[in-house]
Amino acid sequence: MNENMNTPSTRGPLDHDVRDQVINAATKHFGHYGYEKTTVSDLAKAIGFSKAYIYKFFDSKQAIGEVICSNRLAMIMAIVDAAIAEAPTASEKLRRLFRSISEAGSDLFFHDRKLYDIAAVASRDQWPSVKAHEVRIRAIIQQILLDGREAGEFERKTPLDETTNAIFLVIRPYVNSAQLQYNLDTVPEAAVHLPALILRSLAP
Amino acid sequence: MNENMNTPSTRGPLDHDVRDQVINAATKHFGHYGYEKTTVSDLAKAIGFSKAYIYKFFDSKQAIGEVICSNRLAMIMAIVDAAIAEAPTASEKLRRLFRSISEAGSDLFFHDRKLYDIAAVASRDQWPSVKAHEVRIRAIIQQILLDGREAGEFERKTPLDETTNAIFLVIRPYVNSAQLQYNLDTVPEAAVHLPALILRSLAP
Repeated sequence: MNENMNTPSTRGPLDHDVRDQVINAATKHFGHYGYEKTTVSDLAKAIGFSKAYIYKFFDSKQAIGEVICSNRLAMIMAIVDAAIAEAPTASEKLRRLFRSISEAGSDLFFHDRKLYDIAAVASRDQWPSVKAHEVRIRAIIQQILLDGREAGEFERKTPLDETTNAIFLVIRPYVNSAQLQYNLDTVPEAAVHLPALILRSLAP
Repeated sequence: MNENMNTPSTRGPLDHDVRDQVINAATKHFGHYGYEKTTVSDLAKAIGFSKAYIYKFFDSKQAIGEVICSNRLAMIMAIVDAAIAEAPTASEKLRRLFRSISEAGSDLFFHDRKLYDIAAVASRDQWPSVKAHEVRIRAIIQQILLDGREAGEFERKTPLDETTNAIFLVIRPYVNSAQLQYNLDTVPEAAVHLPALILRSLAP
């Protein structure tokens, strides 16, 4: 698929308006009828555009789903960023990262199930938006580790890459929507017990 | 569903033979055509029994799938038990638990995909066989912790239940077939990095 679909195009502002219009309508339509069961024809009919016209702006249904998914993941990242921004220590940042990301994912599942399903498809098939999201989560984990090591909160013997990766693997089932749906019942305890285990492993 | 379907019935040996015959045929049939797409009628036709006759022995398709799933999970547990039995230390038992269970699950996925799919359905819907499997994994983790605490390998401050649960949550995405299919690419590194992280957290 086209990995550049989110980058600004050379098209004019009118084209951008149409793109936004399609995305807004598609978000509502997929949010109501589900992503997998909806075709571009269904969507075109619902918006009142021709299928050919939609294809002028998006290569495929996935390209539309990808923008919707990116938007949602950006909302989740904003929640995570806000949660950890004011944390006084690296340890507290790690706890808040676990709590905020698993709760934001659960909220999406319980309050916007059909849009959650797009994220689940995207996670299952590792769409570029999901890969980029995982790269951001990894970067946040690494920055928390660097902060904690510098502050003397965390040990410095284990290679940074290994620790970052291990923590990412622990949090991934709560980040990846394809997996989170099987972990919803354990989110409250996981958000407490997993960072506690990790923090014991990071003790200097 | 009937949770007692695996317990010995009061039926005679002939009935057990018929049950085994159905299970063997169903294992082959599901293994070839998949569980979700096969009906009891399809199965009856393939075995050469009437549908009513099969229903004399099994309440539902799930009851048949449940026995197949139990058999597979018992094979996986045998592999895990063998892997940890000879380990010289609790730390090594923990490493082997991670490696053996994630590899046995991956093997099932790559070599018997249709039977893996039964386990994935069973994990998604939390069939009794899967719940019992998870209880056994938890018990193994707890026993390893007790051994390690007694030998002075592991810290004893954290409540045993909390540590057991945290480790179970870390390993679960590699035990639960519904989730493992999304983690196959990380199994080799997870089998090294996750026990290493846990062992750092258990340091006295």
